[in-house]
Amino acid sequence: MSNALIQRFLSVREQTLSLSRPLSEADMTVQAADFVSPGSWHLAHTTWFFEEFFLCALNNRWPQSEPYRFLFNSYYENVGRRQAQGKRGLITRPGLSEILRYRRTVDQAVLEALDKGVGKELQDVVELGLHHEQQHQELFLTDILYNLAQNPFFPAYRPAASRPKRPASAPSSEMIAFSGGLERIGHDGNGFGFDNEFPRHWVYLEPFQLARGVVANGDWIRFIEDGGYRNPLLWLADGWKTVQAEQWQAPLYWIIRDGYHSMTLEGLQAVVPEAPVAHISYFEADAFARWAGKRLPTEAEWETAITCGDSPTPFSYGEVWEWTASPYAPYPRFKIRPGAIGEYNGKFMCGQYVLRGGSSATPPGHSRPTYRNFFYPHQRWQFTGLRLAADGPDAD
Amino acid sequence: MSNALIQRFLSVREQTLSLSRPLSEADMTVQAADFVSPGSWHLAHTTWFFEEFFLCALNNRWPQSEPYRFLFNSYYENVGRRQAQGKRGLITRPGLSEILRYRRTVDQAVLEALDKGVGKELQDVVELGLHHEQQHQELFLTDILYNLAQNPFFPAYRPAASRPKRPASAPSSEMIAFSGGLERIGHDGNGFGFDNEFPRHWVYLEPFQLARGVVANGDWIRFIEDGGYRNPLLWLADGWKTVQAEQWQAPLYWIIRDGYHSMTLEGLQAVVPEAPVAHISYFEADAFARWAGKRLPTEAEWETAITCGDSPTPFSYGEVWEWTASPYAPYPRFKIRPGAIGEYNGKFMCGQYVLRGGSSATPPGHSRPTYRNFFYPHQRWQFTGLRLAADGPDAD
Amino acid sequence: MSNALIQRFLSVREQTLSLSRPLSEADMTVQAADFVSPGSWHLAHTTWFFEEFFLCALNNRWPQSEPYRFLFNSYYENVGRRQAQGKRGLITRPGLSEILRYRRTVDQAVLEALDKGVGKELQDVVELGLHHEQQHQELFLTDILYNLAQNPFFPAYRPAASRPKRPASAPSSEMIAFSGGLERIGHDGNGFGFDNEFPRHWVYLEPFQLARGVVANGDWIRFIEDGGYRNPLLWLADGWKTVQAEQWQAPLYWIIRDGYHSMTLEGLQAVVPEAPVAHISYFEADAFARWAGKRLPTEAEWETAITCGDSPTPFSYGEVWEWTASPYAPYPRFKIRPGAIGEYNGKFMCGQYVLRGGSSATPPGHSRPTYRNFFYPHQRWQFTGLRLAADGPDAD
Amino acid sequence: MSNALIQRFLSVREQTLSLSRPLSEADMTVQAADFVSPGSWHLAHTTWFFEEFFLCALNNRWPQSEPYRFLFNSYYENVGRRQAQGKRGLITRPGLSEILRYRRTVDQAVLEALDKGVGKELQDVVELGLHHEQQHQELFLTDILYNLAQNPFFPAYRPAASRPKRPASAPSSEMIAFSGGLERIGHDGNGFGFDNEFPRHWVYLEPFQLARGVVANGDWIRFIEDGGYRNPLLWLADGWKTVQAEQWQAPLYWIIRDGYHSMTLEGLQAVVPEAPVAHISYFEADAFARWAGKRLPTEAEWETAITCGDSPTPFSYGEVWEWTASPYAPYPRFKIRPGAIGEYNGKFMCGQYVLRGGSSATPPGHSRPTYRNFFYPHQRWQFTGLRLAADGPDAD
Repeated sequence: MSNALIQRFLSVREQTLSLSRPLSEADMTVQAADFVSPGSWHLAHTTWFFEEFFLCALNNRWPQSEPYRFLFNSYYENVGRRQAQGKRGLITRPGLSEILRYRRTVDQAVLEALDKGVGKELQDVVELGLHHEQQHQELFLTDILYNLAQNPFFPAYRPAASRPKRPASAPSSEMIAFSGGLERIGHDGNGFGFDNEFPRHWVYLEPFQLARGVVANGDWIRFIEDGGYRNPLLWLADGWKTVQAEQWQAPLYWIIRDGYHSMTLEGLQAVVPEAPVAHISYFEADAFARWAGKRLPTEAEWETAITCGDSPTPFSYGEVWEWTASPYAPYPRFKIRPGAIGEYNGKFMCGQYVLRGGSSATPPGHSRPTYRNFFYPHQRWQFTGLRLAADGPDAD
Repeated sequence: MSNALIQRFLSVREQTLSLSRPLSEADMTVQAADFVSPGSWHLAHTTWFFEEFFLCALNNRWPQSEPYRFLFNSYYENVGRRQAQGKRGLITRPGLSEILRYRRTVDQAVLEALDKGVGKELQDVVELGLHHEQQHQELFLTDILYNLAQNPFFPAYRPAASRPKRPASAPSSEMIAFSGGLERIGHDGNGFGFDNEFPRHWVYLEPFQLARGVVANGDWIRFIEDGGYRNPLLWLADGWKTVQAEQWQAPLYWIIRDGYHSMTLEGLQAVVPEAPVAHISYFEADAFARWAGKRLPTEAEWETAITCGDSPTPFSYGEVWEWTASPYAPYPRFKIRPGAIGEYNGKFMCGQYVLRGGSSATPPGHSRPTYRNFFYPHQRWQFTGLRLAADGPDAD
Repeated sequence: MSNALIQRFLSVREQTLSLSRPLSEADMTVQAADFVSPGSWHLAHTTWFFEEFFLCALNNRWPQSEPYRFLFNSYYENVGRRQAQGKRGLITRPGLSEILRYRRTVDQAVLEALDKGVGKELQDVVELGLHHEQQHQELFLTDILYNLAQNPFFPAYRPAASRPKRPASAPSSEMIAFSGGLERIGHDGNGFGFDNEFPRHWVYLEPFQLARGVVANGDWIRFIEDGGYRNPLLWLADGWKTVQAEQWQAPLYWIIRDGYHSMTLEGLQAVVPEAPVAHISYFEADAFARWAGKRLPTEAEWETAITCGDSPTPFSYGEVWEWTASPYAPYPRFKIRPGAIGEYNGKFMCGQYVLRGGSSATPPGHSRPTYRNFFYPHQRWQFTGLRLAADGPDAD
Repeated sequence: MSNALIQRFLSVREQTLSLSRPLSEADMTVQAADFVSPGSWHLAHTTWFFEEFFLCALNNRWPQSEPYRFLFNSYYENVGRRQAQGKRGLITRPGLSEILRYRRTVDQAVLEALDKGVGKELQDVVELGLHHEQQHQELFLTDILYNLAQNPFFPAYRPAASRPKRPASAPSSEMIAFSGGLERIGHDGNGFGFDNEFPRHWVYLEPFQLARGVVANGDWIRFIEDGGYRNPLLWLADGWKTVQAEQWQAPLYWIIRDGYHSMTLEGLQAVVPEAPVAHISYFEADAFARWAGKRLPTEAEWETAITCGDSPTPFSYGEVWEWTASPYAPYPRFKIRPGAIGEYNGKFMCGQYVLRGGSSATPPGHSRPTYRNFFYPHQRWQFTGLRLAADGPDAD
């Protein structure tokens, strides 16, 4: 069997465990909001994914426990009823040690099967399961941060020293021009891609400009200090409603007291002006762009710019997910796959916006230029930021 | 001054009044939900629009009352604070007769000004105000229906005899093929258009098919009877949540008891199988299309098909607004106009879907092929239906 | 037949109409909160009461319309299903003129029956119906005030000149001592009384003191200015939660801007320091008493003091309903009457507090020393105030 | 120093720990509703009580951590701001082992002080702290049951074998007559009592009857099967609203499927017809009594009966807390104590009902005939049941 797949399986599964090591069973159990999940649920759900879609498919009914099937199914209607999403944090049995045992049992069965060899279709399921698990590795971190942020005493997930050194970001104000025209975007079929990246297709683009760097905390502080959060004319109507209802005055986790601080995975830290701004909603990204006299790029502009032509790409990305102006919608001729796997992406194509790039919490090698991340426009608990765009000179 | 504009002003303003004649002051006052407005508010708000944007602009401060400015501003942040949208139905002073007097006073001042003559810019404001008023004529009817539908005894707005005879609709299952390619959509600048219809621009379309007729009640009854409202696999995730939370089992206003009936402007009526289905949400339209093995058209497909080439258009439309698959977003190079008028459309470009066509409640001559109506995907109180689309044969 | 009863019927029914004369149909239709009712609903419901409990009982089925029975039943489970309380304001058909016609029809039928003569039991129903209607006369005024208060421009129900001159109140700080002991309270059976005033029974009271006058606006301003609304130690736990959730800073309808003003039936008026404070909740009354180093009286103390001995009563009351410390509970051996009339009071004996006295909105002759009014501790839209009490010297 | 107090301190503190031993850190952390608290919070809060009210008082500022003071203060406004009650379950730091260490540290300091000797006032604080802790021992069990009951697979807190054998209950239908008259109730000052049990005072009682036994599950099944939960005429108005809103059909934790079962601390168990009914609200107790043609006793009746005269008490109690008809209110001349301790009971005297007796979860020796427990009328997660009462023969 593909040794590479086995090695990757071992490595990705171990990486999830390593994320959980700094945490207590209590840390791994709670759920501070409907939209986050407990750490131990992430451990169990990613395991259930292999059990349900690989082992059950392989064995035509693996001896799976009904409780686990109920508790660790996320949203697959094909699989059946499940624990309400907002009540995952009330489940304390099975506990963490039983969930770790569950991981070991499933891992062993998957590895045995891979060792004996399985067909292409099941190999693809394992591949999907690993990318799925990597998505949950990022969610694990963002959810833990959200949960710990409920504690008024700013507990740290990891020591500040462990924070990876951020490279100096490219300037957010330097705009590069692109000529547009008829372009192709979407995954070309080489290597793994989620269903929502397909099919590759033509789009027509007007000339546009895109900033070399993402917006930095220092830029954001100027927006705050210029009254950005108090001026309704900068905001979408739904955005302004949210600003007022939630009393937003800064990005999520920011505390403005004796200067600008932010709750992070390393506890409370001073805001670094040069670092990319993170934990902003689409509404905020859109308002900032309007304040700056610019706009957000569409996902087609972003992808075209990032993959442009012969020259090396003029952009670096990967520090924060970048909100685009594109509502999350199916590409032309997008097809939902049959069975439960078909529920992976398609049914969420409504009301959300596409984000491109990747973040400091994204596992290395997980993202790519055609990757389409998506969240609701009010959501802020991911590492989300923005890059500015503008119309190019009019071709007419 | 343009006699045509004066005639149009008189005619549109009178049409609004004629809609209100069958109603009592009580009928005109209440507001059954945040998203509808009282009839008398529509009368006052459309008047305020002329006062604020025409008379005040003309006179550099027309003697306008602060209460009216507060009570009848809808959502213009540039104009100032205003009555909360969901609490318009609590305002009983000014009463209906005062609001009618307000209309007469403003009408007289506008007519005097038009008679004397005003510049092109102010003529455009009047033109915009009339189209604005026509939009409210449709809302007036949909809101009155919603309000009356709260009464468990099905009061009628007008006698059943007055119902316009519905033409036999074209078959919803007959699909016409289009070749796609690089097409232009958007308003070409001849005649009036709202800002969101501009600028005209290129789009690239894959080959597609579009149904000759919209979906009929009979089709919808088959969807219901096939368990369409009970099968989560047909629905978007947010749609299924809504179905469950709202316990939807049929279009809004339908009552399934001794057959299929529906609350209408003519009171409770039997559902006519041949008539277009109406009062469905985007979620339902999308689920129906999936059940039918089809999909919704994009707005570019719809507009291209409706305006295609040399041949007479093969479609009739105008019985129900047709949900498209297109999230409501700005066209490339869309520009928000300066001042309060700029708030007309742009700030709502988030979270809604575009509808095309027109409905039995749309004033004659108000719609056009480039018209972009928009509502949230869960909303059903408009006369909203759907037309099916499908991918064309693959050109590759 | 009793000419007196007929006269009283005519007079009470006319009094209700006279309250509605200053109001438009719009004013009479809206409902600004679940706990208030539209003016026209009060007109219809009090009529329905005579139809349901007098005419139907008399005729063993009077030709009553099902819609009216559904729409104007308040809370009688014995009678059947009914319009949701919070949605009475959405009903515009029947309109005001139809409701007035309904009143005339029912009045005529009642008067004809009374003229012919009816038995004691049905005479008692008429008597109950008239007291019921008087209760609704007070609710009519408090509900209209609440509805008009939603209008940011302070419309008046009646001209300020019409406001009855308030007598100078007795001092709220002058305490009169009572010796307590074994006392009897409750209605003695002479004249009309609601079921909740029965039976007359013994209670044992410790010595106590009661203030000669109710608390005045001037007292309340001192409480506000001493930080009464900001000090949690003065409040019951549920009261403090309410203060924070509702951001209470003064009695309902008060506006603190350029001094102290209040929305009243005469529009916005300056607060008169000597007048009794009104529109306060039980929570506020209780907190004020604690701040003043006193407490609220129990209803037994109040009734004993007001009806004491040989001497003329040392108290005047009737300007505001006075919160007592007594939860609303059945008197010993209280019996719920059979049939729908049994639902009049008994089923509300939970979670509310007893108020004694009467208010400026209470119809003359409607109250009496044994009268038990009751509201929830957070409610403020009635004309509610307080009188202070204290423990007497210890008898031990 | 009082050896007895030291022994009692050791024993009560150990008893709390022993309750937590069957539970994991996850079990001890979550909070399934605002009104329950996490197990580890109970451990910490009861410790904080000794630190705040004993050690700080003793040392005039014991080195207490601000986080603990914030996190483990329950509701003492005198002490300062605190963690929101409904968000205690989001705190995972300090974890369980740190909280256990905190207990040991405080225990040691208290014991050292007691060993050296402290004055009467501080001894009283320790005594209060121990009774406080015993109250939390009962809450610990009821909260754990509530939390575990959220798990759809019915995990058990302890093995079924450990369930204490329930004695055959006395018949709930056998009524014993009492003559009433002038009686004294309240604590006589011998031994410990909470402030709300004071002062002892006179009440006048009509003749009444009280059942020898509490209502049993078998009685309750008859109520269910007679349509008790579907008949609005049996219910208080607020009770019926709750039945409908919550869709109550049986006591909390009951599952009607293949007979009657109930989630218990021993997992899912068949309902034992002879055992006392538990987990019912005041609303249900009141409705049941009405259905049975009886009523609930007042707390004065209950206390008088239980402590009556020369004969041995004719009642046993202690299996379930018994709802009384008495709203929780201060006794005549009740005084709130100065300082934070004064917040213990007084500020909750609103909107709740008194329960008497004790339950299977009450620590031995914790209750007494004058004990006043109290909960809101809709609450059901305590071990709450009822005993029927009736009016005695009329003395008149």
